[in-house]
Amino acid sequence: MAAVRAAVAGASGYAGGELLRLLLGHPGVEIGALTANSNAGQLLGSLQPHLVPLAGRTLEPTTAEVLAGHDVVFLALPHGQSAAVAEQLGPDVLVVDMGADFRLRNAADWEKFYGSAHAGSWPYGLPELPGARAALESTRRIAVPGCYPTAVSLALFPAYRDGLVESDAVIVAATGTSGAGKALKPHLLGSEVMGSMSPYGVGGGHRHTPEMIQNLSAVAGQDVTVSFTPTLAPMSRGILATCSAKAKDGVSAESVRAAYEKAFADEPFVHLLPAGQWPATASVYGSNSVQVQVAYDESAGRVIAISAIDNLTKGTAGGAVQSMNIALGLDESTGLSTMGVAP
Amino acid sequence: MAAVRAAVAGASGYAGGELLRLLLGHPGVEIGALTANSNAGQLLGSLQPHLVPLAGRTLEPTTAEVLAGHDVVFLALPHGQSAAVAEQLGPDVLVVDMGADFRLRNAADWEKFYGSAHAGSWPYGLPELPGARAALESTRRIAVPGCYPTAVSLALFPAYRDGLVESDAVIVAATGTSGAGKALKPHLLGSEVMGSMSPYGVGGGHRHTPEMIQNLSAVAGQDVTVSFTPTLAPMSRGILATCSAKAKDGVSAESVRAAYEKAFADEPFVHLLPAGQWPATASVYGSNSVQVQVAYDESAGRVIAISAIDNLTKGTAGGAVQSMNIALGLDESTGLSTMGVAP
Amino acid sequence: MAAVRAAVAGASGYAGGELLRLLLGHPGVEIGALTANSNAGQLLGSLQPHLVPLAGRTLEPTTAEVLAGHDVVFLALPHGQSAAVAEQLGPDVLVVDMGADFRLRNAADWEKFYGSAHAGSWPYGLPELPGARAALESTRRIAVPGCYPTAVSLALFPAYRDGLVESDAVIVAATGTSGAGKALKPHLLGSEVMGSMSPYGVGGGHRHTPEMIQNLSAVAGQDVTVSFTPTLAPMSRGILATCSAKAKDGVSAESVRAAYEKAFADEPFVHLLPAGQWPATASVYGSNSVQVQVAYDESAGRVIAISAIDNLTKGTAGGAVQSMNIALGLDESTGLSTMGVAP
Amino acid sequence: MAAVRAAVAGASGYAGGELLRLLLGHPGVEIGALTANSNAGQLLGSLQPHLVPLAGRTLEPTTAEVLAGHDVVFLALPHGQSAAVAEQLGPDVLVVDMGADFRLRNAADWEKFYGSAHAGSWPYGLPELPGARAALESTRRIAVPGCYPTAVSLALFPAYRDGLVESDAVIVAATGTSGAGKALKPHLLGSEVMGSMSPYGVGGGHRHTPEMIQNLSAVAGQDVTVSFTPTLAPMSRGILATCSAKAKDGVSAESVRAAYEKAFADEPFVHLLPAGQWPATASVYGSNSVQVQVAYDESAGRVIAISAIDNLTKGTAGGAVQSMNIALGLDESTGLSTMGVAP
Repeated sequence: MAAVRAAVAGASGYAGGELLRLLLGHPGVEIGALTANSNAGQLLGSLQPHLVPLAGRTLEPTTAEVLAGHDVVFLALPHGQSAAVAEQLGPDVLVVDMGADFRLRNAADWEKFYGSAHAGSWPYGLPELPGARAALESTRRIAVPGCYPTAVSLALFPAYRDGLVESDAVIVAATGTSGAGKALKPHLLGSEVMGSMSPYGVGGGHRHTPEMIQNLSAVAGQDVTVSFTPTLAPMSRGILATCSAKAKDGVSAESVRAAYEKAFADEPFVHLLPAGQWPATASVYGSNSVQVQVAYDESAGRVIAISAIDNLTKGTAGGAVQSMNIALGLDESTGLSTMGVAP
Repeated sequence: MAAVRAAVAGASGYAGGELLRLLLGHPGVEIGALTANSNAGQLLGSLQPHLVPLAGRTLEPTTAEVLAGHDVVFLALPHGQSAAVAEQLGPDVLVVDMGADFRLRNAADWEKFYGSAHAGSWPYGLPELPGARAALESTRRIAVPGCYPTAVSLALFPAYRDGLVESDAVIVAATGTSGAGKALKPHLLGSEVMGSMSPYGVGGGHRHTPEMIQNLSAVAGQDVTVSFTPTLAPMSRGILATCSAKAKDGVSAESVRAAYEKAFADEPFVHLLPAGQWPATASVYGSNSVQVQVAYDESAGRVIAISAIDNLTKGTAGGAVQSMNIALGLDESTGLSTMGVAP
Repeated sequence: MAAVRAAVAGASGYAGGELLRLLLGHPGVEIGALTANSNAGQLLGSLQPHLVPLAGRTLEPTTAEVLAGHDVVFLALPHGQSAAVAEQLGPDVLVVDMGADFRLRNAADWEKFYGSAHAGSWPYGLPELPGARAALESTRRIAVPGCYPTAVSLALFPAYRDGLVESDAVIVAATGTSGAGKALKPHLLGSEVMGSMSPYGVGGGHRHTPEMIQNLSAVAGQDVTVSFTPTLAPMSRGILATCSAKAKDGVSAESVRAAYEKAFADEPFVHLLPAGQWPATASVYGSNSVQVQVAYDESAGRVIAISAIDNLTKGTAGGAVQSMNIALGLDESTGLSTMGVAP
Repeated sequence: MAAVRAAVAGASGYAGGELLRLLLGHPGVEIGALTANSNAGQLLGSLQPHLVPLAGRTLEPTTAEVLAGHDVVFLALPHGQSAAVAEQLGPDVLVVDMGADFRLRNAADWEKFYGSAHAGSWPYGLPELPGARAALESTRRIAVPGCYPTAVSLALFPAYRDGLVESDAVIVAATGTSGAGKALKPHLLGSEVMGSMSPYGVGGGHRHTPEMIQNLSAVAGQDVTVSFTPTLAPMSRGILATCSAKAKDGVSAESVRAAYEKAFADEPFVHLLPAGQWPATASVYGSNSVQVQVAYDESAGRVIAISAIDNLTKGTAGGAVQSMNIALGLDESTGLSTMGVAP
């Protein structure tokens, strides 16, 4: 098969950079236009010095003309900007939105959390969720999940699918700073971040909360509530999501383990660890792997599922490539590594 | 008042080192014998190079002879070793145990989690808990709390005391690596820790769990269950504890805030942050301060309380000095700073 | 003696924050006005959350009116702004400039490296340099040294004073990110800094170079050249300066050691480590200590001196307080700790 | 071409793990036996959890029987152990020693720095050095360079080859902790490493010094001396080497730049950065790239060359694969990425 030609809108940010790193190693993709907003006109090498093969490429402005003539267009844009760009791309172009714009199906949720008009929803790029893979085959529009919803949904959906837990989930997750992007904010300075853990968006305010609720409720077949507390950790990459819910009567360590083994047995990227071994974000650094472990705490009466991902890889750019592969009819794992860069 | 003379058993470890840092700045304490086990005979300067004023002191073996003749003896020993040493010290000596031996009142809990015979229990050195301060006045035996129970109990007791939440608490906490001590274990190597978050002791196995249950149940006046997941964060110091429980009917953001304001209004070391500001471990680095914030998540129906402490200071050595001050009739804050070393 | 009243201009930055941390623990200082530029009007607690006792203080604008009526005024301002402020303060006010404006005696150097008119020079606040202490006694104007020149000058002056080394020094230093201040620059983001070492200002361009040359040439009694390469390290605080120069004929390990022992024997803050022990920035974290070690590499024919300081403490705010103490006739160590916060 | 079958002796350490990560992505290699010493009998997944595809493989003991029947055998063993193993492997087997045993040509140097009998020397696996590539073609024995000598030799050889600098080089390098391996030593604990920079092996004592001297002297055609100071940085991976030497008369910024452009023009892995851009270890994280920049400091009269590598990739395992490719007649870049994992 001839290589598809891919453009990346938003190539100067962290998500765009990670995507380019993966696409450069993808045998079926040829990299086309690279665009940016304020960084248009600059050499990629000055902004993404780790992407050696593209160091001499100049960033172009994000316009319909520049993005025309590609088979695939990745959008790594601030939220609210994807719809306008996507409209100008033909229906045969595969558009992969790495932003939030088309993730939520409920317009009211979108308006409440993002404060603008809802653009609609596209097939959801988390193939491991029940039913998701089929919807991605042959689609020409993909909404890449948020990084937290990726980690949380994969950790909890087996328990909800098999009806093992009550409907109120409690989630505390730690993220590396790249999850916040390259925005120049004081609390993201190295001096502030190193040596410190701190929460943010506590009490239901984080925009990824309705996305988790959407995913888990669909699997559970009933409304699930989510108490979600994100925390910022002193590392560049990685999400560790600690998720729990009250176990229903009759649940046992065995039934919990069985639900998770069944859910991930054939998944190329989700690895249920052997009993006694727990996920670590270092183990999935730069990889598309998800490490999952689950326990049943009999004393507290809760099922605790923990997942580790790389927020930029499986959590964003790797997930995007995985879904692109499915939509293009390629092997789902093409160009994606399951091996972390450790230590 | 003349300075009291204090000995430190276990001066080569992290807890002992932090204690010495604080005692060197304490105007009412003169530092006496410093003991160690395998490090006896070495200069303190080679093991604790940051303690400049004591660099030339030689560590002695931990024996009754060496520890005799002091007004206060701090024990920073592996669990199970404190009772034997304490027995040899007279009843007038103030013994402050920074280990676990005398924290739990329930012998069965001790045996289950520590696997040895229960040594008993001493007045519990968390003065901010209801009733605790009075028990510490004039005592000659103090059990310093564990670092996690310090962070968790302070974050949650106001909600339990005022009956605002249900009895099943869910706690996820991140700790710096010094919480694990100087033990030479592969997962504590810098290469493994940096850039990584990972959980451990998941599912009720952590030894600090029964101590949290003991504290919260006492305040609640009923049995509280605790689902506790500790995680190891890439930083040397600090605990961030994210604690939540289902809100009872009728609870509001106002009633939650009021409970916490009341609880900490007169506390010298616990600071309820202004609304909208959240704790960060960097802000309490090296200090005896506790930062607390609380939220009521109406959608999820939970009260979420988050605390940040320095595990070595308020979580161990600072807590020990604070309780010592009370027992000696000194001002509770003597020799303790509320200011973190930041950034 | 009654406490002196001190104002801090530039209280919202890292240098100002560290100064306040030290002044809060200084028994002879009462904290007066706190000023800022763009942050004026904000609560200090929202900008410096670790400074608990001052959390409720509001930042005022940096004006002559606000700074009037203090015994001491600390200036932590961007370079080029100190002279205008200092002129409005009376000659009896002790003005301690933590910026660069009055460090260089050579106007041409200033103009070359800072691109503006030279404001003059004030007594130099590095008391350990030969002759410096006397110049600080009773002065009412102090130029606090740069952080790198502090680390480098202390590491090398004994070798130059005793004529042990040739005149061309080679220095490579690593600094924590707080040395770059709170400026919102992409390369200072946590995501960029963590896990990375990188140089900057290579080839003589760093503004601290002429200050090092000034200090070392004065001690050597001849022109010294300095090759200085600063590097940014993944830590918040600390400078490790590796300094070397060709040994002159007849130099031996013994003569080198003797020169350093003599230089620091009576210094309260500079600690020549025992042979075989090397400085670590962690050991001086948050303290005013300087750790120094020196070696004579016979094969390479060089003397290598290495120093570790906390760039914010001894390198800025601690050095400022130390010099203030001298100028005020207080014990030089008042309010300053020699103990690092470690691990 | 059929895949070669490769065994890895020392598969549980950091060098072995990184090698396996690379070999898993190498299209011409099939992974055979994996051996260890004390870890023999364990599952690789419990020791190298990031190597998902090999998680179920069991480590075997390092014996001639186990290593027999492979085309390539990689040795990642403690120094002094490679010769005995290599002797038992046939002359047709490609043996790639990632340890120090066969790097030094001078027996006296070996004995002085390693304290045992010299085993000999093998073709040196740094293809970018003048003459090195030819010696690697078709060899069946390769000595992989040390990580520091890799970074330093590449940074300095162009200046020495073109006779631009004097014979006494001064080098200060920072390394991530993985350079010290998985050894359980107190100073390598995360608690000690994070937030700290410290030197070690100062004054000529580091074992990589004679290797640098060997490389640079050969290129210079005269004896070069090296003053080498390694420092430990708070990061897992990466070496930043700051190297300088006095410029000879007549040297200019242009002649320096030209020498480096010439040296690296055709190199697939060494990238001379555009003027004004400096290396960062983050940019080469997990890649086989070397970033180099060079400056001529006219004031100090020195040429300063700085390189960044990943100590485990180009500095060890990547360099090993690169040399293996040459020896096997494969494209030199096979299985090796030039892209770092950043941020």
